[in-house]
Amino acid sequence: MPAAAAAPEGRKPIEVWTWPTPNGHKVHILLEELGLPYTVVPVNIGAGDQFKPEFLAITPNHRIPAIVDPEGPEGTRFTLFESAAIMIYLAEKTGSTLLPANPAARYHCLQWLMFQMGGVGPMFGQYNHFANYAAEKLPYAIERYTNEVARLHRVLDKRLSASPYLAGPEYSIADIATFPWIRNPERRGIDLAHYPAVRRWHDTIAARPAVQRGVAVLSERQRRGAITDAEREVMFGKKQFAVR
Amino acid sequence: MPAAAAAPEGRKPIEVWTWPTPNGHKVHILLEELGLPYTVVPVNIGAGDQFKPEFLAITPNHRIPAIVDPEGPEGTRFTLFESAAIMIYLAEKTGSTLLPANPAARYHCLQWLMFQMGGVGPMFGQYNHFANYAAEKLPYAIERYTNEVARLHRVLDKRLSASPYLAGPEYSIADIATFPWIRNPERRGIDLAHYPAVRRWHDTIAARPAVQRGVAVLSERQRRGAITDAEREVMFGKKQFAVR
Repeated sequence: MPAAAAAPEGRKPIEVWTWPTPNGHKVHILLEELGLPYTVVPVNIGAGDQFKPEFLAITPNHRIPAIVDPEGPEGTRFTLFESAAIMIYLAEKTGSTLLPANPAARYHCLQWLMFQMGGVGPMFGQYNHFANYAAEKLPYAIERYTNEVARLHRVLDKRLSASPYLAGPEYSIADIATFPWIRNPERRGIDLAHYPAVRRWHDTIAARPAVQRGVAVLSERQRRGAITDAEREVMFGKKQFAVR
Repeated sequence: MPAAAAAPEGRKPIEVWTWPTPNGHKVHILLEELGLPYTVVPVNIGAGDQFKPEFLAITPNHRIPAIVDPEGPEGTRFTLFESAAIMIYLAEKTGSTLLPANPAARYHCLQWLMFQMGGVGPMFGQYNHFANYAAEKLPYAIERYTNEVARLHRVLDKRLSASPYLAGPEYSIADIATFPWIRNPERRGIDLAHYPAVRRWHDTIAARPAVQRGVAVLSERQRRGAITDAEREVMFGKKQFAVR
């Protein structure tokens, strides 16, 4: 769990501006795997915290997660947003092999990290929007993203049938980035019984203590039940398009 | 232009499996900027080339671009897909400062590259789908992505009002990745007059000879006019969901 007090080697904790979503959990899990001290600054995206000036000063894109590292490059305060950029930064900062040192493995890791960033994340997000969040139910859009979510699971299953982890034989930041989007598959109408290699991979990763600590971050703040009209207005209404 | 004959330092040309789309152009521009020799293997995504076994052997995700570098890590043949992974690979392979060496600039470059990968690319793609490609016109979906395309332009304009380029004072792979999605703004209902910093940045990049050569790759194969029913079926129909 976040532990400002337990800074090894005198490191100052990294501030994580975050919320218990898949993109937030990527960074929580990685920080736990790396054993880095961190403090959590909750950004309640259902209540509009992402539009507050203190958050917009860190990221003009008003999306979680973002970090503030008091001991960034050259020892100075450093802010960074975009989950995958944060993951590469933290892995390189610590010299972790979660971003493999071997060049072929390194680029395969980045390849699957990008597959998550450009495919899994945005497309699963659109599925969530049309299937679970949108006030209007549009069969065309729901079918489009249902098909795409299944297709992306098939691509992952093909890869994981040939390789223990996404980047190759070793667990990497590509797995950490993808796992939070694969857990709770019932939320996107997926039965992992149809994707046995994904299920084997999921179960292996879900058993890691650092992963369990990572997905527990802010779990007490997770929304239970359907989205409210007020949350829908904050998350998908006009306000986000008026931010300057 | 692609020039298999002009390999400097005896380098064998990199095969680029590609098509004249924004994701393809990212890699074409970078190869031109780096002066690397390359050959183009056209993957006609309107005709279904992306489902051919020879392409699926390179990428299970059947999306362009992908590369085959005959002189990859340790001098052996290396295949890679996902445009941003290819860009990081090529920049690091050549030691180019298009991925800055300075750590703060490096991670700002990756941050904006990820903003393109996770935001600009997928969201502009959804706009294209619902506004230009989908057989059904869904006002809710068109409005959703029209708003998001404008919002992402505002985020870019804010950044480019404070910085000459996305990563900072220097042109980088973050700019190369984003530029192909900003050119031809009328295709997504955007008038760059509303985004003066984006327009200044666009015009500066558009004037670079390597950029002009990059976006000319396969330009003779670019579709003119509206999508045909046959292309729609190949690109968005059931076939892509049946690939194993």
